[in-house]
Amino acid sequence: MKLVMAVIQDKDSVRLSQALIKENFRATKLASTGGFLRAGNTTFLIGTDDTQLDRLLEIIKDNCKSREQLVAPMSPLGGSADAYSPYPVEVEVGGATVFVLPVEAFHQF
Amino acid sequence: MKLVMAVIQDKDSVRLSQALIKENFRATKLASTGGFLRAGNTTFLIGTDDTQLDRLLEIIKDNCKSREQLVAPMSPLGGSADAYSPYPVEVEVGGATVFVLPVEAFHQF
Amino acid sequence: MKLVMAVIQDKDSVRLSQALIKENFRATKLASTGGFLRAGNTTFLIGTDDTQLDRLLEIIKDNCKSREQLVAPMSPLGGSADAYSPYPVEVEVGGATVFVLPVEAFHQF
Ligand code: NI
Ligand code: NI
Ligand code: NI
Repeated sequence: MKLVMAVIQDKDSVRLSQALIKENFRATKLASTGGFLRAGNTTFLIGTDDTQLDRLLEIIKDNCKSREQLVAPMSPLGGSADAYSPYPVEVEVGGATVFVLPVEAFHQF
Repeated sequence: MKLVMAVIQDKDSVRLSQALIKENFRATKLASTGGFLRAGNTTFLIGTDDTQLDRLLEIIKDNCKSREQLVAPMSPLGGSADAYSPYPVEVEVGGATVFVLPVEAFHQF
Repeated sequence: MKLVMAVIQDKDSVRLSQALIKENFRATKLASTGGFLRAGNTTFLIGTDDTQLDRLLEIIKDNCKSREQLVAPMSPLGGSADAYSPYPVEVEVGGATVFVLPVEAFHQF
């Protein structure tokens, strides 16, 4: 038994939840902010048998991994005018920080 | 020393808090949603000496265990009319998903 | 690799965040309430190499340790009139409850 704590971006949260449910992993989500990733993240707690750990990590990677995305430029109102560009810009989105913790005992009541 | 992470239903949260305080366990609560249990759950973090672990698990079980409860039927406004029943229905409430984690060191500053 | 879970008071949260960033520790914050400390606390999750653990604990201690502080008395509207004092009172603020957890694997995707 392992407890996987995965900090991911909010925007990947629904997709990861659905992928976990589809393969019978059960997770709980903790509201979290800042730090490991850009603003707006969620921490998933997922319990798993040792035999399913690799598959679980694969699901997290497939649904949350860091990638580049073209986004419409932010309005200059939101930042400095210098940084404003009228063209879509490439930003890095997603990403997951994952801790696998040993579990000494697991109970369901 | 162990760290117990217990995901329980919101409706059992006050009762569990009071039972823990009464027996001198100290806990912190994390806002959490979905997954292990039906919507509206809370994750308790509880530190405990090894010698008190069994008692702690007993308290969690006694206050949160899954049980059947008669509830007034939901209004058809809240769901499909087909599912509506004028009689109280039995639903499963409560339940706890509990991970016992080893702790390498514990500090209070 | 260790995962440090530190429950601290909200009022020390910004200061701790800044100190961690300055020394390249990466943390995520979980909204939490009650229990280990007085109302209004935050749980930090911080991953660290074993070699940096002592420094991390020192940073937490330096920024969050329990200390006495003079505060203006609360208005009697906020409590019982009996408890009201026109003079500043010493209260204990801060404090940190810290669990150091072993990590079996760590991934960044
Ligand atoms: Ni058991
Ligand atoms: Ni110590
Ligand atoms: Ni690896």
